[in-house]
Amino acid sequence: MRTGIWLVGGRGSVATTTITGAAAMRAGLAPAYGCVTELPAFSSIGLPGFDELVFGGHDVVQTDLVKRAEELAAAGVFPRNLPEAVREDLMAADAEILPCADGDASSTQAMVAEALVADINDFRRRNNLERVVVVNVSSTEAPIRKVPAHDSLAALREALAQGQSVLPSSSLFAYAAFLADCPFVDFTPSPGARIPALDELARERGLPYAGSDGKTGETLVKSTLAPMFAHRALRVKSWHGTNVLGGGDGANLADPERVISKSISKAMVLEAILKYQVEGGVHIHNLVDMGDWKTAWDHVTFEGFLGTRMTMQFIWQGCDSSLAAPLVLDLARLVAVAHREGVSGPMPELAFFFKDPVGTDEHELERQYIMLTDWAEGLQAKG
Amino acid sequence: MRTGIWLVGGRGSVATTTITGAAAMRAGLAPAYGCVTELPAFSSIGLPGFDELVFGGHDVVQTDLVKRAEELAAAGVFPRNLPEAVREDLMAADAEILPCADGDASSTQAMVAEALVADINDFRRRNNLERVVVVNVSSTEAPIRKVPAHDSLAALREALAQGQSVLPSSSLFAYAAFLADCPFVDFTPSPGARIPALDELARERGLPYAGSDGKTGETLVKSTLAPMFAHRALRVKSWHGTNVLGGGDGANLADPERVISKSISKAMVLEAILKYQVEGGVHIHNLVDMGDWKTAWDHVTFEGFLGTRMTMQFIWQGCDSSLAAPLVLDLARLVAVAHREGVSGPMPELAFFFKDPVGTDEHELERQYIMLTDWAEGLQAKG
Amino acid sequence: MRTGIWLVGGRGSVATTTITGAAAMRAGLAPAYGCVTELPAFSSIGLPGFDELVFGGHDVVQTDLVKRAEELAAAGVFPRNLPEAVREDLMAADAEILPCADGDASSTQAMVAEALVADINDFRRRNNLERVVVVNVSSTEAPIRKVPAHDSLAALREALAQGQSVLPSSSLFAYAAFLADCPFVDFTPSPGARIPALDELARERGLPYAGSDGKTGETLVKSTLAPMFAHRALRVKSWHGTNVLGGGDGANLADPERVISKSISKAMVLEAILKYQVEGGVHIHNLVDMGDWKTAWDHVTFEGFLGTRMTMQFIWQGCDSSLAAPLVLDLARLVAVAHREGVSGPMPELAFFFKDPVGTDEHELERQYIMLTDWAEGLQAKG
Amino acid sequence: MRTGIWLVGGRGSVATTTITGAAAMRAGLAPAYGCVTELPAFSSIGLPGFDELVFGGHDVVQTDLVKRAEELAAAGVFPRNLPEAVREDLMAADAEILPCADGDASSTQAMVAEALVADINDFRRRNNLERVVVVNVSSTEAPIRKVPAHDSLAALREALAQGQSVLPSSSLFAYAAFLADCPFVDFTPSPGARIPALDELARERGLPYAGSDGKTGETLVKSTLAPMFAHRALRVKSWHGTNVLGGGDGANLADPERVISKSISKAMVLEAILKYQVEGGVHIHNLVDMGDWKTAWDHVTFEGFLGTRMTMQFIWQGCDSSLAAPLVLDLARLVAVAHREGVSGPMPELAFFFKDPVGTDEHELERQYIMLTDWAEGLQAKG
Ligand SMILES: NC(=O)c1ccc[n+]([C@@H]2O[C@H](COP(=O)([O-])OP(=O)(O)OC[C@H]3O[C@@H](n4cnc5c(N)ncnc54)[C@H](O)[C@@H]3O)[C@@H](O)[C@H]2O)c1
Ligand SMILES: NC(=O)c1ccc[n+]([C@@H]2O[C@H](COP(=O)([O-])OP(=O)(O)OC[C@H]3O[C@@H](n4cnc5c(N)ncnc54)[C@H](O)[C@@H]3O)[C@@H](O)[C@H]2O)c1
Ligand SMILES: NC(=O)c1ccc[n+]([C@@H]2O[C@H](COP(=O)([O-])OP(=O)(O)OC[C@H]3O[C@@H](n4cnc5c(N)ncnc54)[C@H](O)[C@@H]3O)[C@@H](O)[C@H]2O)c1
Ligand SMILES: NC(=O)c1ccc[n+]([C@@H]2O[C@H](COP(=O)([O-])OP(=O)(O)OC[C@H]3O[C@@H](n4cnc5c(N)ncnc54)[C@H](O)[C@@H]3O)[C@@H](O)[C@H]2O)c1
Ligand code: NA
Ligand code: NA
Repeated sequence: MRTGIWLVGGRGSVATTTITGAAAMRAGLAPAYGCVTELPAFSSIGLPGFDELVFGGHDVVQTDLVKRAEELAAAGVFPRNLPEAVREDLMAADAEILPCADGDASSTQAMVAEALVADINDFRRRNNLERVVVVNVSSTEAPIRKVPAHDSLAALREALAQGQSVLPSSSLFAYAAFLADCPFVDFTPSPGARIPALDELARERGLPYAGSDGKTGETLVKSTLAPMFAHRALRVKSWHGTNVLGGGDGANLADPERVISKSISKAMVLEAILKYQVEGGVHIHNLVDMGDWKTAWDHVTFEGFLGTRMTMQFIWQGCDSSLAAPLVLDLARLVAVAHREGVSGPMPELAFFFKDPVGTDEHELERQYIMLTDWAEGLQAKG
Repeated sequence: MRTGIWLVGGRGSVATTTITGAAAMRAGLAPAYGCVTELPAFSSIGLPGFDELVFGGHDVVQTDLVKRAEELAAAGVFPRNLPEAVREDLMAADAEILPCADGDASSTQAMVAEALVADINDFRRRNNLERVVVVNVSSTEAPIRKVPAHDSLAALREALAQGQSVLPSSSLFAYAAFLADCPFVDFTPSPGARIPALDELARERGLPYAGSDGKTGETLVKSTLAPMFAHRALRVKSWHGTNVLGGGDGANLADPERVISKSISKAMVLEAILKYQVEGGVHIHNLVDMGDWKTAWDHVTFEGFLGTRMTMQFIWQGCDSSLAAPLVLDLARLVAVAHREGVSGPMPELAFFFKDPVGTDEHELERQYIMLTDWAEGLQAKG
Repeated sequence: MRTGIWLVGGRGSVATTTITGAAAMRAGLAPAYGCVTELPAFSSIGLPGFDELVFGGHDVVQTDLVKRAEELAAAGVFPRNLPEAVREDLMAADAEILPCADGDASSTQAMVAEALVADINDFRRRNNLERVVVVNVSSTEAPIRKVPAHDSLAALREALAQGQSVLPSSSLFAYAAFLADCPFVDFTPSPGARIPALDELARERGLPYAGSDGKTGETLVKSTLAPMFAHRALRVKSWHGTNVLGGGDGANLADPERVISKSISKAMVLEAILKYQVEGGVHIHNLVDMGDWKTAWDHVTFEGFLGTRMTMQFIWQGCDSSLAAPLVLDLARLVAVAHREGVSGPMPELAFFFKDPVGTDEHELERQYIMLTDWAEGLQAKG
Repeated sequence: MRTGIWLVGGRGSVATTTITGAAAMRAGLAPAYGCVTELPAFSSIGLPGFDELVFGGHDVVQTDLVKRAEELAAAGVFPRNLPEAVREDLMAADAEILPCADGDASSTQAMVAEALVADINDFRRRNNLERVVVVNVSSTEAPIRKVPAHDSLAALREALAQGQSVLPSSSLFAYAAFLADCPFVDFTPSPGARIPALDELARERGLPYAGSDGKTGETLVKSTLAPMFAHRALRVKSWHGTNVLGGGDGANLADPERVISKSISKAMVLEAILKYQVEGGVHIHNLVDMGDWKTAWDHVTFEGFLGTRMTMQFIWQGCDSSLAAPLVLDLARLVAVAHREGVSGPMPELAFFFKDPVGTDEHELERQYIMLTDWAEGLQAKG
């Protein structure tokens, strides 16, 4: 099953780590740590192999992928020698990462979308791919302002036909993906496919989509720990989280508008699990010195038996791109299988991977894992 | 369903907190935080109410229960005013906590067991109880040395009849519990009912038993977090745990023999979940100054995608007795229901509460919770 | 040496803890932990004894001091039984805490100042005090906007004479203190005496003053640790601090204007010691659930030999009022001695107690301690 | 001032990092971070330049220094490319690191000492060095058992003349150093020069010596923080330290005998500063996975005003060899200057660098720094 992975933001840290890592695993240069789909539970559902994946994408910057990989290696995201070892694969992907048409001032969104669709279709044809999965790993956008054109596919088509610009960038990519008959994965908290008109489009064309916002660090731990408090009847009184991080994501989230999308996405997990309001919040601070690394400190106060107050803290020192990249591979592979199996619309079964999962309110990590493995088992049973 | 709870170690911190707390909740003086059985999932299985519980027990010390409660309140285990508020209940329980016969040098273990049985039977009769659950919350013993008399009920009976002393204290209590037709719960890592001869006895008399070693702090968190690493395919390289604690448990575990039982019990969780060997260990240090409070620091190193090394740490600042006491109530209530329902032998469904659960190898907290709630649901369906 | 301590913000947490604590120590109910002036180095400089201290003050709220003390005791700031034990002292102080005249709309600042002076003078006379030290422990104000009237005493007098309102509240209190011939201590980051006109006034009247912003938690540790990095030539790359706290101070600092004063005060320490710019900042979050307790998490990255990157973190879990109150006593006692000795103007010797010390750029804690003990030694030599 | 640095344990991690780093700084490839002697305070005391240092030493293993450097670089102790960049310097040092004669079974300690002396003298002559400083950076030994031969130089000479083996390895090296007219630095907690007979020898020959046990991580922080508690009159109730570390030092300290020397050295700091007994201890755990990195977690409980209990924790994540190596250079340079200046006997002025300083009881880091800079200033004044 030759499968294309079309990365929106294809020259970013997550994208570069994804492409480098896939090449490294194909070449047997690295263990499959971090790859959920390499666990035994997924061995018989017909996933595309690492040697069947072909990468392309869009980005607004031109930096050479080999150079990006070298920077990331120097920053300790992966071993120093990898970029050299998989240089050819990086150059091949580099040739498939195109500038976005959306920078052009005179063109309408409809025209931009058309150009994106053409890029994806050309990529599929050129590389002789069975299917292409579009994954958004571009910079997080500010939260969306709703307009009537989002409410139905008809309204959206009408607005675009009139030359209006009604979609945020991430949604324009989702729109183009669906028009190009590609499943879509939103790894960011941007709006992406989460507007009624695009959901309608996906269902109309029988395409699966998944999102939103990869769950890689603090929120991953939160969605693991919160059920413990809930099921032990320990009353959480406050949960404060502070994240210090650098890199492209750190710089982008220093923007007070954009960080809102991320904070919303991070905040919902707790109350969805605990079913009551908890004081505190999630704070994100850009520290250039951290490079591609992030430290999260979470401070939780809770009351136990007879109201006795206790405290739990955790400190997570992770490399975001390294945590995200294998999930991008997992998601692309799983969505490719879903596409093959004719799944259409949002995929709640993939909630395990996301801070703000589409199609479900389940936020408990282990319940999400059971949903995922049950789905995989169902496929096997059928297959 | 008037239910007796017979506490071995009835004047210890956990026991005193349990008795004080039950009285406080009966009197509506405290929320039910920490009580798993007060969650909606358990509302229709016919649990004995807090006002149907009657406490008694054995202990080797004589300290007045009111005084113990006052000490614990002063140490911040529960509110200052509680001991005064539930003074009468404490005095009633105090009157039912008997010295153990096992201090007497001339008497054989068979004779001691007989005396213990008589104590329990008297308690049941005197208080007009439907059933009595025996719960071991006495000091942790050193690991057991196996003898042939443990291998079968016949061999055990034979040895005891000959006047031999073949059972550790905790097992003698389990033996007496079963002879008195009581379910048995071992909240400690001591041998308790976990020897073949006693398992045989429980089954012969149709009695349920549960254990071992209440999962309240570091191990609770461990059994919550380890599945996250496993299911995200993150490779745990080392997991070091340090516990500093004071109180009676701290002093007792300062004994190099006894701490072994606890360490074994704490260590197994990780590898049972991850299915591979992990470097590190659990270290317990007695710090008198900590009083009834415990701080655990866990340091975890793991490798993610492409072998990138990351670290997670957590710090747990809890009050052990406060965490343990509601579980003692939960266990006694659930085992009482099991007894009513005719359950016989080890109860894997209660693994959720234990570091080293009998009858199952399931150590993942959320899987254990599902086992527990499934069982409760089954009861409701039946009931 | 009967000495009055006039507390601006006399019903706040710090003030209440100060008054309660002085009474407790006078009564021999508590050890002198936290009191720097009780160390041997200060035993022979003729400090006023705890039994020579008399409390009064101004506040804008009316809550009874006994009630405030009971609230603080319930929150664990000091032992439960203390308020009852020192009830009489609390009631005596309560009677001496007056409403501020500054709420009155029609009165000019000159008139308000006059009223404050009268209050203080009455207090001194009524209680037959040798001297009165005014200490500002009221809510932190927003940073000051400079006006020409601040530049000289003449200009200030002129402006006030014209009925202008040119002083922030804390400076009005400093002005009144000096007019009443009292030394002044600013325990807050508010402007207080730190405007040229007031410095001139203090010198004119031969009065010592000290400030600003008591150094009790995170900044205390910072000013202790930063010299270690400096003197070991370890290059600090980033220093991020997060504080979660509740109480009155937490609520007040939730105000985005007021928190600026505190953040400025907290930030300067680092660069003053290291002599180079360091990335990062200090973040303060109000968490009502923390009550009077504060947790600070500081995350420091640094480079050592050959540029190797390392990390240090600390977690400070303190009770702010409990840390502040003994310093208020120390400062009042030391400034009383300075007054007796004829010291005039800012007191750099007291830098040890402050985040932003007047009269010196010395921020290293141990150097500040040496300055303090050298001064004390000098007094002894003289005395 | 061409100066030789003779490293006992010359192929260990600290030694290799020292040699690599000196070469890197000489070549201008790295900043002087971590080098105390590069601070302005030491700029005019005539220190030997990095280009005047020549390395040699003894070790019991033969591993090539270039290979050792490559291993350390791979482990992140210093940049990847350094070993290649300073290959020639490493090879030059490698040629000067000799096997110890002390492995030979038939030879007496006197004979071994003679051979060591010859090695050092040859090194000095061959490299045309003004002086040679011997620095012990070999594996930590178990604590010493005292024998009468240690009590005086006469007794020691007598015992050695009789062919007795009365010195532990580290002391034999100190003995040989003094015989070869070299100052001696003990960077380890081994006995080294700290026996009366050797102190006598050093003074007899007019040689300075310094030690013991480089203060690089947890103890460094401890000696910085403890004065804060002392001078703020905060009563420390417990101080628990846990260290997890790998590498050669981790493996060596896994030996229950040897770890005692380190633990004694680490424990004394606290009580020397606080002047009262504090509960707790320092625990060292070997975690192979940590490689050359160490994490220390320290948990401090203390009482403040009115007995209120508070907690401070710190987490130190450092690379031991990287912290130690610049201090080895500092010490060698400073002791070379002392030798030039005719200093004889123990050097308390260097306490700043040691956990267990010879010649002084001063353990407060900043006081030690003042002692050091005062000494440097004295030299300048004289020079
Ligand atoms: N790394 C993680 O753990 C993680 C987790 C969840 C979500 N995410 C999200 O993944 C995204 C990527 O993160 P990253 O660290 O790679 O960031 P990055 O800044 O390194 O990469 C983003 C890339 O997107 C490109 N880009 C920006 N606008 C674009 C546009 N309109 N069209 C096409 N490309 C565009 C940028 O040029 C850049 O190359 C972010 O939105 C982040 O929030 C990351
Ligand atoms: N608190 C927790 O979080 C927790 C968690 C898991 C297990 N446990 C276990 O629970 C037990 C009780 O803990 P605790 O903190 O109450 O300890 P504790 O020391 O306060 O109480 C133990 C009591 O057992 C009594 N005792 C000792 N030997 C006895 C005997 N032979 N017969 C009868 N009584 C005896 C003691 O006199 C004491 O009153 C310990 O074994 C502990 O390891 C506690
Ligand atoms: N606690 C610490 O560790 C610490 C350290 C440094 C500085 N401080 C500063 O000390 C001050 C007091 O802290 P707190 O925790 O007691 O706060 P708090 O809110 O409990 O008390 C402040 C008191 O000031 C009173 N007040 C407000 N405006 C006033 C005015 N104009 N005139 C007179 N009284 C007025 C309030 O009514 C209140 O009673 C704050 O400014 C705080 O930033 C505290
Ligand atoms: N790194 C630090 O932060 C630090 C701090 C204080 C003290 N120290 C001490 O420095 C010493 C060196 O640490 P390391 O990390 O380099 O250890 P290491 O194990 O890497 O090196 C020790 C070297 O000493 C050699 N050696 C052993 N016995 C010897 C003998 N009898 N004669 C000559 N050589 C011998 C070994 O072969 C090895 O090469 C240890 O004693 C350690 O405790 C290190
Ligand atoms: Na089991
Ligand atoms: Na000493």
